[in-house]
Amino acid sequence: MPATPAWPPASTPRLFVDLPLGQGVAPMIDGAAAHYLLNVMRMKAGDPILLFDNISGEWLAVVADAAKRSLTLRIERQTKAIERVPDLWLCFAPVKKARLDWIIEKATELGVSRLQPVITERTIVERVKRERLEAQIIEACEQCGRTALPTLAEPVKLPQLLKDWPAGRSLLFADEAGGAPLASIDTPAPAAILTGPEGGFTARERELLTGHPAVRRIALGPRILRAETASIAAVGIWMAQNGDWSADA
Amino acid sequence: MPATPAWPPASTPRLFVDLPLGQGVAPMIDGAAAHYLLNVMRMKAGDPILLFDNISGEWLAVVADAAKRSLTLRIERQTKAIERVPDLWLCFAPVKKARLDWIIEKATELGVSRLQPVITERTIVERVKRERLEAQIIEACEQCGRTALPTLAEPVKLPQLLKDWPAGRSLLFADEAGGAPLASIDTPAPAAILTGPEGGFTARERELLTGHPAVRRIALGPRILRAETASIAAVGIWMAQNGDWSADA
Repeated sequence: MPATPAWPPASTPRLFVDLPLGQGVAPMIDGAAAHYLLNVMRMKAGDPILLFDNISGEWLAVVADAAKRSLTLRIERQTKAIERVPDLWLCFAPVKKARLDWIIEKATELGVSRLQPVITERTIVERVKRERLEAQIIEACEQCGRTALPTLAEPVKLPQLLKDWPAGRSLLFADEAGGAPLASIDTPAPAAILTGPEGGFTARERELLTGHPAVRRIALGPRILRAETASIAAVGIWMAQNGDWSADA
Repeated sequence: MPATPAWPPASTPRLFVDLPLGQGVAPMIDGAAAHYLLNVMRMKAGDPILLFDNISGEWLAVVADAAKRSLTLRIERQTKAIERVPDLWLCFAPVKKARLDWIIEKATELGVSRLQPVITERTIVERVKRERLEAQIIEACEQCGRTALPTLAEPVKLPQLLKDWPAGRSLLFADEAGGAPLASIDTPAPAAILTGPEGGFTARERELLTGHPAVRRIALGPRILRAETASIAAVGIWMAQNGDWSADA
């Protein structure tokens, strides 16, 4: 006897919708998302789709009606509760376009709770296009199965970040001048990782950082890592040691 | 009294040359590298440059003569011995262009000794442009301070890779179906990490892998990581735990 095909199939599209979902809600999808579902995915009435809203978790819906430029969906059942990702912030100096995109995408996949752009003295890219980064966060969440988007904070200058730093949250500062090997220290959540721009931090910034009570200097090996490599490696190592990677999947 | 400026300055270009270096050697640089040094970096006689040859380490040279399309250098002294990077291989299924570039660049920065493309049943990108990958490896080494290039192996099919697997080298298989959390297991060098293509491994491949004595299944957390994210996170975690990141910098 052949096995019953899995429902929904593994290829079911997964979409973030910016409206509260729940039993009885009939979400209407239009705009770019509808274009994608209708013309790229060629969805029609009865086809399944997974939805998440950043509030109530993930829901299985089916297409109730496919019009020319919009779809009406019917929610079948909840498939996941809203998740709690580990409380790790990534504080990063914005770098140039493709490398910034990678930081956003990879940190989201790896599971950070908050993305905090930090303007440092050597930061070259001072303008962060919020809409662009939001779109990348959503796409990464759709792809990796997250039901909660990481918060994208407004850019702040480093001294302000440190001045307002919340009590009890450790700040792991990836210091090119050296520090404790990240694998050797135990920093449970709430925590944050801070990585610098391509040119590194200035002497004045290093002084501010090393004098702050929440800061611990960490080292990421003997080679010179690019800003985005340092960010992603540090987040991965923290997740493996202190995040939610420790339980068997 | 002002401090003596550092020599060579931090901005000194760093270049791989495919010829053996040593005291008394007068390397001649032409082609694209000469174009870059002459027209982008605007180098002239007396300017410093760091060279490495993948054999003898790193050397400080100065420009002895700058012609229109070539430079002759004079070696001053050795600045680094050849390094021994940790004996970690990354075995990866080639993915599409930008994501493959990222795997190559980041794995090189993080310090792998060998890059091994593996053709799996669901690998879509079967042709790997060797020259392109070599150029990326060299650029990443120039940037991150490595003096030894990682070996770029010829692509092999997965069954062949396992058949020829060297005794004593553990193979950490990033299994989407789950495994031991990478932070919980101790796998000193020689070791290797194996990551799959976007579609994952087939049931037959998983059977081959789990039946192999060198293989240990590892898990990389509850979210679905893209192929390149899994590769880079796993390499970073291994380097932090078992590589050369454990000594204070």
